[in-house]
Amino acid sequence: MKKKLAILGSTGSIGTQTLDVIRHLNKHGHEFKVHSLAVKGREDFEKLAPQIDEFKPEKLCIFNEKDADTFPFFNGEIMIGNEGLIELSKDPEIGAVVVSVVGAVGIEATVEGLKTNKRVCIATKEVLVAAGDIIMGLANNGNGELLPIDSEHSAILQCLNGEGLDNIKKIHITASGGALRNWSPKRMKNATREDVLKHPNWDMGAKITVDSATMMNKGLEIIEAHHLYSVPFEKIDAVIHPQSFIHSFVEYCDGSMIAQMGKADMRLPIQYALTYPERYPSLEPETDFDEMISFKLKPMPGKKKFPCFYLALEAGKIGGTMPAVMNAANEIAVYAFLNKKIGFGDIPIVVKEVMGAHKKYLIKEPTLDEILAIDIKAREFAEDVIFHIQKDKRGIKK
Amino acid sequence: MKKKLAILGSTGSIGTQTLDVIRHLNKHGHEFKVHSLAVKGREDFEKLAPQIDEFKPEKLCIFNEKDADTFPFFNGEIMIGNEGLIELSKDPEIGAVVVSVVGAVGIEATVEGLKTNKRVCIATKEVLVAAGDIIMGLANNGNGELLPIDSEHSAILQCLNGEGLDNIKKIHITASGGALRNWSPKRMKNATREDVLKHPNWDMGAKITVDSATMMNKGLEIIEAHHLYSVPFEKIDAVIHPQSFIHSFVEYCDGSMIAQMGKADMRLPIQYALTYPERYPSLEPETDFDEMISFKLKPMPGKKKFPCFYLALEAGKIGGTMPAVMNAANEIAVYAFLNKKIGFGDIPIVVKEVMGAHKKYLIKEPTLDEILAIDIKAREFAEDVIFHIQKDKRGIKK
Repeated sequence: MKKKLAILGSTGSIGTQTLDVIRHLNKHGHEFKVHSLAVKGREDFEKLAPQIDEFKPEKLCIFNEKDADTFPFFNGEIMIGNEGLIELSKDPEIGAVVVSVVGAVGIEATVEGLKTNKRVCIATKEVLVAAGDIIMGLANNGNGELLPIDSEHSAILQCLNGEGLDNIKKIHITASGGALRNWSPKRMKNATREDVLKHPNWDMGAKITVDSATMMNKGLEIIEAHHLYSVPFEKIDAVIHPQSFIHSFVEYCDGSMIAQMGKADMRLPIQYALTYPERYPSLEPETDFDEMISFKLKPMPGKKKFPCFYLALEAGKIGGTMPAVMNAANEIAVYAFLNKKIGFGDIPIVVKEVMGAHKKYLIKEPTLDEILAIDIKAREFAEDVIFHIQKDKRGIKK
Repeated sequence: MKKKLAILGSTGSIGTQTLDVIRHLNKHGHEFKVHSLAVKGREDFEKLAPQIDEFKPEKLCIFNEKDADTFPFFNGEIMIGNEGLIELSKDPEIGAVVVSVVGAVGIEATVEGLKTNKRVCIATKEVLVAAGDIIMGLANNGNGELLPIDSEHSAILQCLNGEGLDNIKKIHITASGGALRNWSPKRMKNATREDVLKHPNWDMGAKITVDSATMMNKGLEIIEAHHLYSVPFEKIDAVIHPQSFIHSFVEYCDGSMIAQMGKADMRLPIQYALTYPERYPSLEPETDFDEMISFKLKPMPGKKKFPCFYLALEAGKIGGTMPAVMNAANEIAVYAFLNKKIGFGDIPIVVKEVMGAHKKYLIKEPTLDEILAIDIKAREFAEDVIFHIQKDKRGIKK
């Protein structure tokens, strides 16, 4: 692959770790060049400035138009908005684009990257969830290649090496259980922002940490796995594994299970997505089994504890525009929770209500434009639902 | 592959399970035909008779010449001795031979199978240990193919699917720890035959169950893995894993670990060796994660607890004729222990003494004939050592 890269979302958790990996690979004689970086807005400038200094990208995208003019540390052209992301992604100079923006905003950049034959390394779950059929339609028909860089789908990809997809009996996605894994369903309803953001195993962005506590992330990952590996929903499940040592595993028709294991370090799946199918040496020393490692696999709890997980599965099975709607509603609900507008227990209520309202408007085989339009509508409707939840609560307080 | 098979050692644990697998595969529309069976002698007749009835082999080998004439249940030709095993193995009618005899007696049958371009499915650890260089010299130069059917090497093979051998950082072979895993080194020295034969996880033959208690089996497996996958000894270790859920795992240069897991059921690696690189559905239902599974990985204890393991490693690193000598001494010592001639703690003493005596006669690149001759000499010398141990003990008793 051509080793010039665009990194969309360079100051987030995945973006900065991608730059760590590139720095490491270059130090060891591989030549990866950062061609462009994209960030959201003013809040990212402090981290973006040293990245520009070190990696000297040729192009930049600052998503929020009003912030773009105020960025003083770049002489070249600064692109803006979704068009900016798309421009970076389809740039003929690059070989690969890392999509690690937050939420559904990465969809078009992914589509354009594939259409212009790039390797798209995708960290943003929502992209495949909302537009999986369209994206896989491109990738499976020889347009570019799609590589996952979250730990679960990278694990599955590694477990499928040299195997036939027809022989899969079940894909088991492991779940840490999130910050509230030992809480009762009743207590969970009133979990605060602070409770939720203490994730036990991983240091991630806020949105995904909330999704991990609601177990929505495993629902999204099952939908992603369904698309990435063309496997029906009946053949994918989630298993609780608090130690996050096994990152996922595949059970084959003969009863054999292949697992990918290792440290909970996102740089590994990022590097694998960049170097696939090759493996390049990592910075990390050999794993030491001089201390005892102890781990567990437990069944997934029911709907009462993790309603979001089951809502995501339901949306995935319905298909069409429903996963995009479910995902949009979840994004809005999670930000409302992070902004202390609604409670933790309100997140599945919002998602369920928005999904319910969409049922009669479902489009079975939507175009990309239809998905993007419905994504916007679902967000607006979710805001409405949140407004009413807030109003009801103020009513109760009176 | 041609689906006519020879099964050498058909009444042992691996042999009977191989027939289970063949019965299962045939029931599901695959056509495997048992062409010939081989057993040791009279003690196997009770199990052999119904096998002949069901699978109707065309040829038979009864290793012990004096027993062969007394077998009433077969009309065809009955071959005898090592020549009989070799005849079955090189028969042009067959496509694969399963070598599951006990001990080094399988070496020549393996060599002849490979020379006549068969798939050799090898359960007998001692074959590769004693003659690994010669056997791999054949297999790596396009003579037949060698497939492992013990759970650890089958696991490693599966973990290497689609990967480059150059990218291996370390092969980790898991060890249940054997029947005495929780005993102190001091108490282990006086373990009885009955103590040792109670293996916690597997129902295996007596020889291999003792090797599992001394941890000699892991030493032998490291030597096998060294040959099978052309990996230096520094890159192979053993890890204690009492649950036997992970059957082995491979760590790659990028820090990723691929593990093969599943039930402790030998029919799985047997079937994989027969159907490789395909996977055919097994009889077993889907693995159920509805109950919690809990497992551990622990470092390998030191020389005091498992001296045999370290003697095997030493022999492997010395190479040449030393592994054959170590293996022969171990076989004789284990049978002496099973026959209550020596104590459990005497097994490593015998192995060490025989290895020590061989050092000055070491042949670096032995021929097959030299290995076979030294194997016999080492056995004789081991019997001598055992005789003296017995004499000393009787002396002490007086």
